[in-house]
Amino acid sequence: MDAGATLPHVVILGGGFGGLATVRALADAPVRITLVDRRNHHLFQPLLYQVATAGLSAPSIAAPLRQILRRQANATVLLDEAIDVDLAARRVRFEHGALDYDFLVVATGATHAYFGHDDWARWAPGLKTLDDAFAIRRRVLLAFERAERESDPGQRRPWLNFVVVGGGPTGVELAGTLAEIARHTLPREFRRSDPRRARVLLVEAGPRLLAAFDPSLSAKAQRQLERLGVEVLTGTAVTAIDAQGVRLGEQPLAARTVLWAAGVAASPLGRQLGAPLDRAGRVRVAPDLSLPAHPEVFVIGDLACVERADGTLVPGVAPVAKQMGRHAAARIRARLDADSTPAPFHYRDRGALATIGRMAAVAQFGRLRLSGPPAWWVWLVAHIYFLIGFRNRLVVLLDWAWAYWTYQRHARIVTGADAEAVPDPDGPPP
Amino acid sequence: MDAGATLPHVVILGGGFGGLATVRALADAPVRITLVDRRNHHLFQPLLYQVATAGLSAPSIAAPLRQILRRQANATVLLDEAIDVDLAARRVRFEHGALDYDFLVVATGATHAYFGHDDWARWAPGLKTLDDAFAIRRRVLLAFERAERESDPGQRRPWLNFVVVGGGPTGVELAGTLAEIARHTLPREFRRSDPRRARVLLVEAGPRLLAAFDPSLSAKAQRQLERLGVEVLTGTAVTAIDAQGVRLGEQPLAARTVLWAAGVAASPLGRQLGAPLDRAGRVRVAPDLSLPAHPEVFVIGDLACVERADGTLVPGVAPVAKQMGRHAAARIRARLDADSTPAPFHYRDRGALATIGRMAAVAQFGRLRLSGPPAWWVWLVAHIYFLIGFRNRLVVLLDWAWAYWTYQRHARIVTGADAEAVPDPDGPPP
Repeated sequence: MDAGATLPHVVILGGGFGGLATVRALADAPVRITLVDRRNHHLFQPLLYQVATAGLSAPSIAAPLRQILRRQANATVLLDEAIDVDLAARRVRFEHGALDYDFLVVATGATHAYFGHDDWARWAPGLKTLDDAFAIRRRVLLAFERAERESDPGQRRPWLNFVVVGGGPTGVELAGTLAEIARHTLPREFRRSDPRRARVLLVEAGPRLLAAFDPSLSAKAQRQLERLGVEVLTGTAVTAIDAQGVRLGEQPLAARTVLWAAGVAASPLGRQLGAPLDRAGRVRVAPDLSLPAHPEVFVIGDLACVERADGTLVPGVAPVAKQMGRHAAARIRARLDADSTPAPFHYRDRGALATIGRMAAVAQFGRLRLSGPPAWWVWLVAHIYFLIGFRNRLVVLLDWAWAYWTYQRHARIVTGADAEAVPDPDGPPP
Repeated sequence: MDAGATLPHVVILGGGFGGLATVRALADAPVRITLVDRRNHHLFQPLLYQVATAGLSAPSIAAPLRQILRRQANATVLLDEAIDVDLAARRVRFEHGALDYDFLVVATGATHAYFGHDDWARWAPGLKTLDDAFAIRRRVLLAFERAERESDPGQRRPWLNFVVVGGGPTGVELAGTLAEIARHTLPREFRRSDPRRARVLLVEAGPRLLAAFDPSLSAKAQRQLERLGVEVLTGTAVTAIDAQGVRLGEQPLAARTVLWAAGVAASPLGRQLGAPLDRAGRVRVAPDLSLPAHPEVFVIGDLACVERADGTLVPGVAPVAKQMGRHAAARIRARLDADSTPAPFHYRDRGALATIGRMAAVAQFGRLRLSGPPAWWVWLVAHIYFLIGFRNRLVVLLDWAWAYWTYQRHARIVTGADAEAVPDPDGPPP
């Protein structure tokens, strides 16, 4: 056993923004850290929609966790999946082993949820992982290919109808980008069908898009989307999704491509922590982000339910997760120093950004509201800046500059064991 | 019906180097062209090993066929898979329809072959498509992850043994790059296992590597590989491959990662053309590349068996396929002009290149033989030059420069529905 084995062991589950921020904030702490993730990479999720819409390749927004942490000598990275947590024994069991901890940070995030309609998942994929992004890319690109192959206009139409469900940032990004692809990227390339005839619908059950933003920005986002060619339907509930398309209220719409951006549910690991959960499955943590009865266990990021002074929840976005990760690290350091003064987590809101398309975005920073090109530039600079790794920033910038001037999207590659693995309404279930 | 419908219809099956060259060489011919491929992209196969070894992302070496051909008004691209050819009716049947042709060019290439041991495919993936490359990337990266997770040195060893079967250009490239990854890219990132202890074996049944090259270059390639840390075993037959590893002659070797670069077989479509085939399933075409009894049907690229004056076969490489494509196009033009003078295909051999690793390659041009850095520079310039699309060239150059100086490989991302989809010797069959 090396000397390090006697140091307190911090186990961190999940290498997203929250988990990674915790690891880094403990770089010079007298602890051994083990970061466990079931994937080998950290994902820059805010740009995942660009992979889904063929604008960026996967390695541009993902980096191996062990590459990111290769210089942090007190951190070990393991590829494994947590099965359960034994809080009394301070032990996490994984698919391929177990680890004892002195401190545990649970940062396993969220996945998409279909609100009791799990059968919709087959027809309306969501966007959380790189594999999700590849699945969406494949469906979108193949829809245009199917339309080109189809000689009967009645059969062709459903392949050119694209429905995005959910008017939050992801839905807005996807719908805006799909409209751009149909109107600008593809038209010259097809001979039999006309991609410009594609309809892109963005459906939101609530009264407005981007509910987390100021209502004036919601209205501006809607106008910018409509200028790009997106049909925006607010106050419209999706009541069914199947092989033929969607039902909007009572109205059926034939659409072969439906994308889900409507709901998230917290990671199921939250259920094992013995603490109360909110409706979305998030863990109601103590003010310092620890579990009420277990000050050595912290829950951070999208898995944590934290209320602000005004009663609203802190949002499930990257800056929150990072701040929570640094807070959990600070609490671990304090406890190592036997300092147990309560230190509640406070989210410092640095603003919110949502992108829509070329030179189209909205942003709010305190009382400042931006939209159109100024918001888009802020969004671009912020996202390039926060991308992990210098190389990625440079390549992403180059890819974007290229895409911007040429309207080309360089990652329009369909792969997958069955390159046509779109569920076929006439075929057997997958 | 538009006026174009009365023009002769040229159907081209396969959008590889051969098929694409045919389409382009017919750009200003009075024909309608339909290019059909089961994938949506042209693949720059000479760099596929870089995707498999995480050095390049897929979009850097692949471009959508319809993007490449968007300005060629007489060409239509369809995504579909040919099922059979009715030579008498001049009709190709596809999975989703059928096309009548006046001229047919069959350029559906080759796939890897296991010489009657199809059960080896599960344990030893080959490298022909992007999906193959992703599968190899996943296995190689996960092998190092498994080694890191494994605490028992006896259990760890097989995860650090890599066997590449086949000493042709692909095998040499894979083995050289694997050794580089183990020795230079990964070491600082692992805490429990040492990637430098990985063994990379290159196994060739014949007496020397790179049999298509001059023997002096084979010897140089072997020395360069050994300097990179590859163990080269020539004259060694692989007699078994299973969950535990390989058998080399009578000697078993425990290895969890075996890559297959040993054999190719021509596309099964060749069997439907009524012409004699060679042992590898290639079609024995007439001297002008047409089918003996069907002057309106041409077979080109890896699917065609063409002898040179000295009795050797023209090799299955990109320059040959391109020259064949241009030849088939010229023959179609001649026949449109009612010119039926025989015009046999002659391969103009512009030389051969094989890369091994950093500053390590071999090249021969006529009597000129190069190895080491000069050959590597020629290889680099040639491959960047021939990459389709300016953007790709620039980004690939940037990626390589970055990888060269930092030893990092930016595409080390493991994806796949089951991120650990390596066949598990203890698990059920896939």
